[in-house]
Amino acid sequence: MRTQLDQRELARLAAEFRACVEGRESEASVRARVAQLATTYVALGEDGRLAFVSVIAAQLGTPEERALAAAQRILDAESPEARAEAIHGARAALEAPWLKLLAQFNTLSDGVKFLVDLRADLLGFSRERPDLRLLEQDLRQLLASWFDVGFLELQRVTWDSPASLLEKIAGSEAVHAVSGWNDLKNRLDPDRRFFAFFHPRMPAEPLIFVQVALVSGLAGEIAPILDPDAPLADPAEADTAIFYSISSVQPGLTGISFGGFLIKRVVDLLKLEFPRLRTFATLSPIPGFRAWLERELAAGNLQLKPEQREQLGALIEAPTAALPGESLKTLLLQLCADYLMNARRPDERALDGVASFHLANGARIERIDWLADSSLEGREASLGLMANYLYRLEDIEANHRAYNEERAIVASSAVEQLGRAGRKLRAG
Amino acid sequence: MRTQLDQRELARLAAEFRACVEGRESEASVRARVAQLATTYVALGEDGRLAFVSVIAAQLGTPEERALAAAQRILDAESPEARAEAIHGARAALEAPWLKLLAQFNTLSDGVKFLVDLRADLLGFSRERPDLRLLEQDLRQLLASWFDVGFLELQRVTWDSPASLLEKIAGSEAVHAVSGWNDLKNRLDPDRRFFAFFHPRMPAEPLIFVQVALVSGLAGEIAPILDPDAPLADPAEADTAIFYSISSVQPGLTGISFGGFLIKRVVDLLKLEFPRLRTFATLSPIPGFRAWLERELAAGNLQLKPEQREQLGALIEAPTAALPGESLKTLLLQLCADYLMNARRPDERALDGVASFHLANGARIERIDWLADSSLEGREASLGLMANYLYRLEDIEANHRAYNEERAIVASSAVEQLGRAGRKLRAG
Amino acid sequence: MRTQLDQRELARLAAEFRACVEGRESEASVRARVAQLATTYVALGEDGRLAFVSVIAAQLGTPEERALAAAQRILDAESPEARAEAIHGARAALEAPWLKLLAQFNTLSDGVKFLVDLRADLLGFSRERPDLRLLEQDLRQLLASWFDVGFLELQRVTWDSPASLLEKIAGSEAVHAVSGWNDLKNRLDPDRRFFAFFHPRMPAEPLIFVQVALVSGLAGEIAPILDPDAPLADPAEADTAIFYSISSVQPGLTGISFGGFLIKRVVDLLKLEFPRLRTFATLSPIPGFRAWLERELAAGNLQLKPEQREQLGALIEAPTAALPGESLKTLLLQLCADYLMNARRPDERALDGVASFHLANGARIERIDWLADSSLEGREASLGLMANYLYRLEDIEANHRAYNEERAIVASSAVEQLGRAGRKLRAG
Amino acid sequence: MRTQLDQRELARLAAEFRACVEGRESEASVRARVAQLATTYVALGEDGRLAFVSVIAAQLGTPEERALAAAQRILDAESPEARAEAIHGARAALEAPWLKLLAQFNTLSDGVKFLVDLRADLLGFSRERPDLRLLEQDLRQLLASWFDVGFLELQRVTWDSPASLLEKIAGSEAVHAVSGWNDLKNRLDPDRRFFAFFHPRMPAEPLIFVQVALVSGLAGEIAPILDPDAPLADPAEADTAIFYSISSVQPGLTGISFGGFLIKRVVDLLKLEFPRLRTFATLSPIPGFRAWLERELAAGNLQLKPEQREQLGALIEAPTAALPGESLKTLLLQLCADYLMNARRPDERALDGVASFHLANGARIERIDWLADSSLEGREASLGLMANYLYRLEDIEANHRAYNEERAIVASSAVEQLGRAGRKLRAG
Repeated sequence: MRTQLDQRELARLAAEFRACVEGRESEASVRARVAQLATTYVALGEDGRLAFVSVIAAQLGTPEERALAAAQRILDAESPEARAEAIHGARAALEAPWLKLLAQFNTLSDGVKFLVDLRADLLGFSRERPDLRLLEQDLRQLLASWFDVGFLELQRVTWDSPASLLEKIAGSEAVHAVSGWNDLKNRLDPDRRFFAFFHPRMPAEPLIFVQVALVSGLAGEIAPILDPDAPLADPAEADTAIFYSISSVQPGLTGISFGGFLIKRVVDLLKLEFPRLRTFATLSPIPGFRAWLERELAAGNLQLKPEQREQLGALIEAPTAALPGESLKTLLLQLCADYLMNARRPDERALDGVASFHLANGARIERIDWLADSSLEGREASLGLMANYLYRLEDIEANHRAYNEERAIVASSAVEQLGRAGRKLRAG
Repeated sequence: MRTQLDQRELARLAAEFRACVEGRESEASVRARVAQLATTYVALGEDGRLAFVSVIAAQLGTPEERALAAAQRILDAESPEARAEAIHGARAALEAPWLKLLAQFNTLSDGVKFLVDLRADLLGFSRERPDLRLLEQDLRQLLASWFDVGFLELQRVTWDSPASLLEKIAGSEAVHAVSGWNDLKNRLDPDRRFFAFFHPRMPAEPLIFVQVALVSGLAGEIAPILDPDAPLADPAEADTAIFYSISSVQPGLTGISFGGFLIKRVVDLLKLEFPRLRTFATLSPIPGFRAWLERELAAGNLQLKPEQREQLGALIEAPTAALPGESLKTLLLQLCADYLMNARRPDERALDGVASFHLANGARIERIDWLADSSLEGREASLGLMANYLYRLEDIEANHRAYNEERAIVASSAVEQLGRAGRKLRAG
Repeated sequence: MRTQLDQRELARLAAEFRACVEGRESEASVRARVAQLATTYVALGEDGRLAFVSVIAAQLGTPEERALAAAQRILDAESPEARAEAIHGARAALEAPWLKLLAQFNTLSDGVKFLVDLRADLLGFSRERPDLRLLEQDLRQLLASWFDVGFLELQRVTWDSPASLLEKIAGSEAVHAVSGWNDLKNRLDPDRRFFAFFHPRMPAEPLIFVQVALVSGLAGEIAPILDPDAPLADPAEADTAIFYSISSVQPGLTGISFGGFLIKRVVDLLKLEFPRLRTFATLSPIPGFRAWLERELAAGNLQLKPEQREQLGALIEAPTAALPGESLKTLLLQLCADYLMNARRPDERALDGVASFHLANGARIERIDWLADSSLEGREASLGLMANYLYRLEDIEANHRAYNEERAIVASSAVEQLGRAGRKLRAG
Repeated sequence: MRTQLDQRELARLAAEFRACVEGRESEASVRARVAQLATTYVALGEDGRLAFVSVIAAQLGTPEERALAAAQRILDAESPEARAEAIHGARAALEAPWLKLLAQFNTLSDGVKFLVDLRADLLGFSRERPDLRLLEQDLRQLLASWFDVGFLELQRVTWDSPASLLEKIAGSEAVHAVSGWNDLKNRLDPDRRFFAFFHPRMPAEPLIFVQVALVSGLAGEIAPILDPDAPLADPAEADTAIFYSISSVQPGLTGISFGGFLIKRVVDLLKLEFPRLRTFATLSPIPGFRAWLERELAAGNLQLKPEQREQLGALIEAPTAALPGESLKTLLLQLCADYLMNARRPDERALDGVASFHLANGARIERIDWLADSSLEGREASLGLMANYLYRLEDIEANHRAYNEERAIVASSAVEQLGRAGRKLRAG
């Protein structure tokens, strides 16, 4: 694989890009050009790719004079109608020519996937190259319009699904890693449901998937769910659907959200198939708990007895060395509830990303589960604790509004009580 | 069907629209609202629909102060980076909130078809209501991004296609009207090919279709092609593909072009299936010829012998009374060639819409056909004349550029010669 | 089309047939032979086809000596085990070699359809050529094993079905002829259900279809059902499913019954889709009533008043001249009930074929409908009368047994009473 | 799982069987019975199943008196027509009622698979219970008529096929066992083709499959083909298709042959997709070679030098201890050619089952490959030797006839020469 592009090649690329956006050639001719450009890009190494997109960003941004003139026209307009026209016209004038280039990749049979992967690259590059950020954001917006949830197809994934799809899914499970075909088959058992969203232009590429276990009562431990040797339950008898994993597959679609919509659609499907289901809830990791606790402890914010402080310190430092003892149970549950309810980002959203996702979707924090995930990952993230977020259909709308408008976090009274106790343990 | 909306209902609509774009409610809740709005709209008569869209136009346009501020920020920017940011930010600021409303209909299962039909309404309304034009244009742009040719699916239509689809197609054939199931079946015979574009979100709704006859030599008459009793030819022996009808089905997609792309894709498919094909050409109506001729004659622009003038006048006045006589043949072929090559719109495109469509796609005017369409429609439009536009693969790109960049019209030498002779007959 | 085969060709055919059954050639080679034979047969006229099958019948019957030896072995067997072996072995020995030939057509892609059509020919030929009857019966048995109901697929036919399929169906409707596409579309309306059986090897060829109207109350007249302009009913509100037409499509499958199975499957599907349905019944023609009545009248078997006799005679003679008058209503209902319940074939089955079909399937005669079918066909067949056969799920088994074991005909008490009154009117 | 049936249950079963074949009940009622019988059977252990089928065999065989009468009628017939009728009638009379019972399982949705599995059981049982043999043979014949190759569907299997199907295939590969998903994925690589036959009534159950590697030149070693890490070849460049594994999946279809047909169909498909292919050959195991050699050696039939005898004896005794040395190469190739060409069964077919299969399909023995399969299985079966059978399209018919009519085995001149040398080493 070639890693670099020389000056001559970069100049040729710039000429190609211009030919694609000038609109003089026929569609077929432009299509042949972008097909060649896509082939070139895919064959490049990281340095070459960075040079490629840098040419786009440098050459195909919005021309300044065009933008200035359009802005002036808005300010100069002498009637409301003229102003409306000027505003409307400015939108096109402000659009960067690179958008036209990007859109043309869509005519290729694999063009949508190409653009999704291109955005994944751009997300990486733009961390250190702020000049690529606008290009990345425009591509995001283009993809957002194409990946509108209305265009997505929800499909059930089963053991009868293509092996190639299952292989992709196994490699993308971000919450509880898939250990092999046996593990995956267990997650497709008759007492499970596995759904994924697809886009018609990327029919073999799942976008996001959700795994559901049909059980009796709120599940408080992940191991039995992941155990391939656990006995099969009769799903028709189940009263509870546990969403135990939600994973995004395409890094290039980061920031384009379909999780909330997916959950709603899945709940609707499950209710139809299993009329006995009463409870829809997650069994979720708490990815930021241990790190937060470590910071709070280091900052001296916690008012603890000496032996608690010692035990807690040891646990936090070596979370995989031993399971937390029962003596710490109440303390940890309180601190965890405090973390979920009171630890916030600057914009007041919950600091914990998983919590924020479900709260924004209208769930409430239902329960914190002790020794719920004793895997290495589970202990490192949250000392083995997990959380249930409850989707109560009649409350979703109110919860959603409370969180999105006022950042109010709704929780069960048990969790609220733990949270208050935890809050008191923190200084200030 | 209710035709009108009273003041209370209009106020309620305005409140609904605002709720849909404010972003405070959950997706599911907004979706329920737009579903209700769509149901309301569809049930309304024309007056009610006009009132409905007028509320959108009046309430959900771009707020002026937001636009002014964004324009000012562009002008005030003190560095190229700041200006690029300001330009990028202005794009969102200038976007009318109605776009958000429109996009939300996409979450409905029939939402895309709803928007396409809504645009058909808006196109009608905005002829007399210029204040609706910006809304219509924004909807056009939204649809254009969704109906990008990359998302369209080309399907062959056959006698094995759903009867419901064939019924829709028969009702939408705009070039040579379908007289019944027998006529339609003839157009789906083994020596024909019939293709249509579909969008995945409107799978039962053809967007545009093209009808092809596989024949030997350039066809110069439409009747044998449309005759259900004509003997079947062996398509494997054919050397010529005649595109004898291209019709758009969805009025709401007017101005969003996929015809050129369709022709290119169909040519590719035909070459693959029938390697013997050498010639790809149309047999096309000349919709504006008689009207143009009438105007030229009335304006005294034609230098004709008295008896020619008399015959021509009689023919133009009553085109369906008798077929044009042989004595007029040379004259009419010359004038028609002149019309196709020299009659232009203000923007220098060919005055004849069909000619302009094929020239823009890279075809050339190959031949003018005498007594080619003796149907009433054919005589009223063009005194029975038709035209062949030839798609020569190696010339498409050059023809396309010549027409699109310089408005140069390419024709066969025979047509060019006719055109020059015709030009001379016109004064000045 | 060649109509005849000369001696040389017949001799060549005989050689071909032998080569196909001797088993010396490879499968591929035999397959090529039978493909050629099928092509030859299809291209022949009636005389040629008759000659073709006559060669098969004459050359590929069971060799007599082989049969005699096998029979002798059965008689000579000295132990039960030996006899069982001999019996088993005899089955193969008695099998005519033509069966092997026929089975080989199955390897052709259209082979099953070829054999079905071949049987249709054989059924025609064997009426005058008893020596072809055994061949026809063996083909029937072969087809019966392939067209076992277990292999058939029930599909719903809708306006979205292929036009080619709808065209075939329209041409095969034997009960109430389809007058055009509009008529057919009416029968596929949302308040109708239309089902057909297909065989996987003849996927474009319906075998039998049934038409159902979803109505309220037992329908007693066919015209409103066939009226394309009748208002649509809401099928979800219907309490009655009326089977108003059951037609077989393939003459070559005559005598291979799937009608009963079809009705059962359709009832199951309808119950699932429309839980409110309570009554499943037919609205059926009475094809033999007028002819039977004419015979009874001619034989002087009816004890009627003179004016009745005169009116009835006039009606029977010219059934399409005028509708039967009200004065004959009671008399005709009684005689019709008598006909349905008491007119029998030599094997004691009901003389009326439609009645026998539904009785054998477990229905009962529910009602006789006055002026129910005023079409020409309806008057010629049954003076406008029709019958409802009722499928009461809890009685089907008992009715079926009663008819099939004891030829007992079950009817509603109203029909029974009419039938007794009618019976008394007949002499003797 | 219940393993046994008591006397009461056996009596009840006998009554059920009779009810199913007497023809008094409706189809729906019989269907319910056989559904229950199938459920009962599947839940039984081996003893119970044996008892179940024993009741069928004892109760539903052909009644002796009926058979005797039918045989007598054949002998007594006084004219050819009467005799033909008697023969025809006898076929039905000799048919055992159990056939009717078996056929009724076909109406169940999984009925065909049930019968296939039932036959697998019967094949096992009848080894020690000759009284079940006739039942097994009748079931075989019934299945043979349903599994006629004309009804089978050839499908390509790829990595996009359902995981459940790939799992079944991996478990059924009888020639070179599949070691895991990685191994399987390698066999589905772009330079491979994998085909399977399916029956429409068992769409998820492959019947037989064939694995093909597209290579350059005749492959002489299996390891590179099975190596997941071997580099991918470009299949468009390949000149040779190597059939390296053909496995039957359904034990219940033993004796119903579709292998020859499969190979022919696959060759046709491959030629269409890869016009450059010139050679179609297998790389096949030689399952009986070592056992035969051991017998020949033990019987003193081989004229060998003492050291050869010693080496050969050691090798045969412990084939997996060490690879055969080069000093034995010529000797073993000669003996193996002798084995393939001259070792015969009583019916003169080749003793080696794989050889006989390919010879019957029209292949010839092309080459014997030294150290071609060094797996444990390969050494135990054939001391690491393998064979290429060549399907030369223009010779298939002649080879097929030569083997099937005269048991003549066709081989390349090299193999013939080896075979003659080998033959000389054997006494007598």
